[in-house]
Amino acid sequence: MANAEPTTPDTLPAWQALLRHAERHRATHLKTLFARDCQGKRFAHFSRRVAGLTLDLSKQRWDEPTLAQLLALARQAGVADAIDGLLSGRRVNQSEDRPALHTALRLPADATLSVDGEDVVAAVHQSLAQMETLVKRLHAGQWRGATGKPIKRVINLGVGGSDLGPQMVAHALADFRPDDIHPLKVHFASTMDGSQLADYLGRLDPETTLFVLSSKSFTTVDTLSNAGTARDWLLSRLARKGATSIRPELVIRQHFIGVSASPEKMTDWGIAPAHQLRFWEWVGGRYSLWGTIGLPIALVIGMANFRRLLAGAHALDEHFASAPLADNAPVMLALAGIWNVNFLDIRAHSILPYDGRLEYFSAYLEQLEMESNGKSVTRDGASAGYSTCPVLWGQLGPNAQHAFYQLLHQGTQPVVCDFIAPLSRYDGVSDPDTRRLLQSQHRLTLANCFAQSRLLMLGDEAIADDAPRPAHKRYRGNQPSTTVLLDRLTPETLGSLIALYEHKVFVQATIWDINPFDQWGVELGKQIAGQTQRILEGDAAPDGMDPSTRGLMEAFWQLGRKNPAG
Amino acid sequence: MANAEPTTPDTLPAWQALLRHAERHRATHLKTLFARDCQGKRFAHFSRRVAGLTLDLSKQRWDEPTLAQLLALARQAGVADAIDGLLSGRRVNQSEDRPALHTALRLPADATLSVDGEDVVAAVHQSLAQMETLVKRLHAGQWRGATGKPIKRVINLGVGGSDLGPQMVAHALADFRPDDIHPLKVHFASTMDGSQLADYLGRLDPETTLFVLSSKSFTTVDTLSNAGTARDWLLSRLARKGATSIRPELVIRQHFIGVSASPEKMTDWGIAPAHQLRFWEWVGGRYSLWGTIGLPIALVIGMANFRRLLAGAHALDEHFASAPLADNAPVMLALAGIWNVNFLDIRAHSILPYDGRLEYFSAYLEQLEMESNGKSVTRDGASAGYSTCPVLWGQLGPNAQHAFYQLLHQGTQPVVCDFIAPLSRYDGVSDPDTRRLLQSQHRLTLANCFAQSRLLMLGDEAIADDAPRPAHKRYRGNQPSTTVLLDRLTPETLGSLIALYEHKVFVQATIWDINPFDQWGVELGKQIAGQTQRILEGDAAPDGMDPSTRGLMEAFWQLGRKNPAG
Repeated sequence: MANAEPTTPDTLPAWQALLRHAERHRATHLKTLFARDCQGKRFAHFSRRVAGLTLDLSKQRWDEPTLAQLLALARQAGVADAIDGLLSGRRVNQSEDRPALHTALRLPADATLSVDGEDVVAAVHQSLAQMETLVKRLHAGQWRGATGKPIKRVINLGVGGSDLGPQMVAHALADFRPDDIHPLKVHFASTMDGSQLADYLGRLDPETTLFVLSSKSFTTVDTLSNAGTARDWLLSRLARKGATSIRPELVIRQHFIGVSASPEKMTDWGIAPAHQLRFWEWVGGRYSLWGTIGLPIALVIGMANFRRLLAGAHALDEHFASAPLADNAPVMLALAGIWNVNFLDIRAHSILPYDGRLEYFSAYLEQLEMESNGKSVTRDGASAGYSTCPVLWGQLGPNAQHAFYQLLHQGTQPVVCDFIAPLSRYDGVSDPDTRRLLQSQHRLTLANCFAQSRLLMLGDEAIADDAPRPAHKRYRGNQPSTTVLLDRLTPETLGSLIALYEHKVFVQATIWDINPFDQWGVELGKQIAGQTQRILEGDAAPDGMDPSTRGLMEAFWQLGRKNPAG
Repeated sequence: MANAEPTTPDTLPAWQALLRHAERHRATHLKTLFARDCQGKRFAHFSRRVAGLTLDLSKQRWDEPTLAQLLALARQAGVADAIDGLLSGRRVNQSEDRPALHTALRLPADATLSVDGEDVVAAVHQSLAQMETLVKRLHAGQWRGATGKPIKRVINLGVGGSDLGPQMVAHALADFRPDDIHPLKVHFASTMDGSQLADYLGRLDPETTLFVLSSKSFTTVDTLSNAGTARDWLLSRLARKGATSIRPELVIRQHFIGVSASPEKMTDWGIAPAHQLRFWEWVGGRYSLWGTIGLPIALVIGMANFRRLLAGAHALDEHFASAPLADNAPVMLALAGIWNVNFLDIRAHSILPYDGRLEYFSAYLEQLEMESNGKSVTRDGASAGYSTCPVLWGQLGPNAQHAFYQLLHQGTQPVVCDFIAPLSRYDGVSDPDTRRLLQSQHRLTLANCFAQSRLLMLGDEAIADDAPRPAHKRYRGNQPSTTVLLDRLTPETLGSLIALYEHKVFVQATIWDINPFDQWGVELGKQIAGQTQRILEGDAAPDGMDPSTRGLMEAFWQLGRKNPAG
């Protein structure tokens, strides 16, 4: 909306037209939309192929005129110009006055992109090269701990964007582990309370364990608390080897890598300069897995596969930059969401991968979407009088069938679902019997995926009945869904899939006129937590605390008095 | 509503009064409710202590008259009588014509409860004794695989209720592992596509691995598919030991335990009768962790601790049975939910444990609540004209602060949150420095928990400002929440916590006049998946398939033709 009047999107002509269109359209059941499609063209009209992905939007509760109006909305909201601004490095993150250049992290080496006079592509590839050096040392078994033994375990200490993306991808692509490397296991510990870390400290060998401290600001209290506990554990256990005492500096140097946009803070903490990986303020935390924050991914799959991941995302970026709006997969996906949220009042969105390797995909997407677009103030500071990001949640689809599909099929609220599945799998299993069984499990899973979206759409009509069913066995149907198929789950297609959702989020933010790249809604909590902790520890008076918070604190103090050791 | 006219709850006088009350009340901000509380009595009025739990409902958007009306609604809906019916074994699961007696699984040995003339308590304790025998053999290292080596790994194959509850509890109580037993690791594999199983098969030793097949019906295709692949893996790898061939029957006998309500089907599959653990049709899958389905829990924490878990749940059951409605913790928790869903139109509910050990609690609760109460047909077969179960989702609270709290604080839709935390922790860490650091991490975590619920409630007013903040840094507040504090996380308090939610679900179902113990909304999907699989595999014609489903199938076939190995 760069050149438009300061106005909110709900005043745009297309938004108004969509309101009228929705008024007429809302009562139409999805099965009716399919019944009207005598020539069977819905699939062709509403599906797209891009970069190893098939995107089927035909089970959304829309028809051709709806899509035409939504495309008009995208034009009136300036989506094409916004895409250009994003990819060319304009300062699209207005409240923090900087560009959002995660796409630059996946540009090929021969591209150029200048930001404030600096060619960021050169800087990006330099940081990838530095990362590669560290990865190769670890994969060669040449990185030795303070007592001289090669590192065998890496624990990533990070939270939010420094955890969800790397963990999701490292898990999804674990089959792509190179087989000619020194054995190395990669773990993730994120929780502020030390639970996960305490578990590792109880069973790992400090001599062969290395920690990666991942924090864009290097001030994240969750990560620094864990780092402090880890440092103490290493120092106390590696203080001596036989008769020789080991210098603490050596322990810190050999057992910590830092990843941050703040080299000063890494140095202050004690990270050796050679073991610092940097990135830039213009990479948002939840968009950062593509660079040095992706170190744990590269440690699992190797740098060659990590570059394939980048190439997959870049292929999607090129599509996003050049495809007309009506053929632009992220734009289409975004428009389906806008239609559901703003015109059908669907406030919940379920993410359902039909592949165990995508176990962490929904947690990743929850952050990407809700932290980016859980906003209610426009870029001009006006209050948004319309809904923005819905609540997203998910689970592996087949497991969710045994958990919350009951609510999707027979509950009282509308929910939109994204089904995600690979078309082909298990080609690489060597034992023929095991391969045959696992491939049969894959087809069973795909059949469940297709069956569920069909049943959600059609309800009772999905199957022919001998006799009428009682009320409690009936299915209303009319729940819309999107299906995203990956030819195979590879570094490339996973890169494309993630980029598809990143860009979807950006298009929706553009239409809602909000900034998807800041997160002011998490700042105040950090301040208040510090104050609360001082009160809890008895270092400040509980003045001005409300009776509830005071009551909770009393409960803590009382238990402490009863049991001072606790 | 046993003796009431066939009517829906929204016609009850209290429901109507609540609608009028909500009309006046809805615009009142939570901070105003606290400001009105000059004497600081909200905490006392809206919090309850039971069985090691502190339940704070004072940050809900209600006042004393609201609660009084909600209690009237509970009375008019027959909640007290329904509780009695549940606990005494009445056939509360009408559509399947049976009682729902998960509470009987935790009755002490000297209790009696007769169902259809049989004393179920004796049967329950007999099954616990049988379970104990198997657990003790494994813990003593006396259970040997087909080649004579003691079992070291147990993989639980189950999904839904046979996975979520056991995994959640086994993870939460891992610190309670007995230290005088033969080393045994317990894993969970649930996904239909074989992902998790394939991962284990790639790295475990078949000679020392035992599988637990957990399925109430013993027909769950997800579990049986995994079981088939596991059996094939064992048989092919254990066919010979040196020069001796090993009988397949011996492999099946020594490497599989079955847990089911159908002994016939276990026998048909090949499970040796001595290795069959049974339970009963009157235990719902999502309520089954308290009995033999809890085998993986008992394998992790030992039978003595498992019995402590049961005792904690039983303490809550006794409270539920005897406390007056206004002091009944599950009833109070349920009423807060009814108020939010039906009178404040809050459709999303976030579960936020501030303790890494409760990592799987929200996934567990998603099933418990959404599968139980995601219904829209009353017990009389009428269509519910009001909302029932909201969408539940969650994440460890501190991690969610870095993921989706942005939406909670500054998004456009109301969300209610449950904060869950232990007051005391890490008493048992032996190293004093590590203990000091971890206890400091625990207090930091608790401070964050209290700070976040306060900020969600008060918004901007939670902190004094030097100057007015710009719009994008402002917090609306007014998001309601519940806080549940556990004195400590122990088998007893975890048992109580789970029972608290189980009974909350039951009370809400009673008020909504729905059956929380059936799940007809998952049946049709199973039928359609079978049909879809036959088409996908080319064994049936795609007649009558809609163009979308057909398009997706074509994509599968095309890829197969391009690459027949796939």
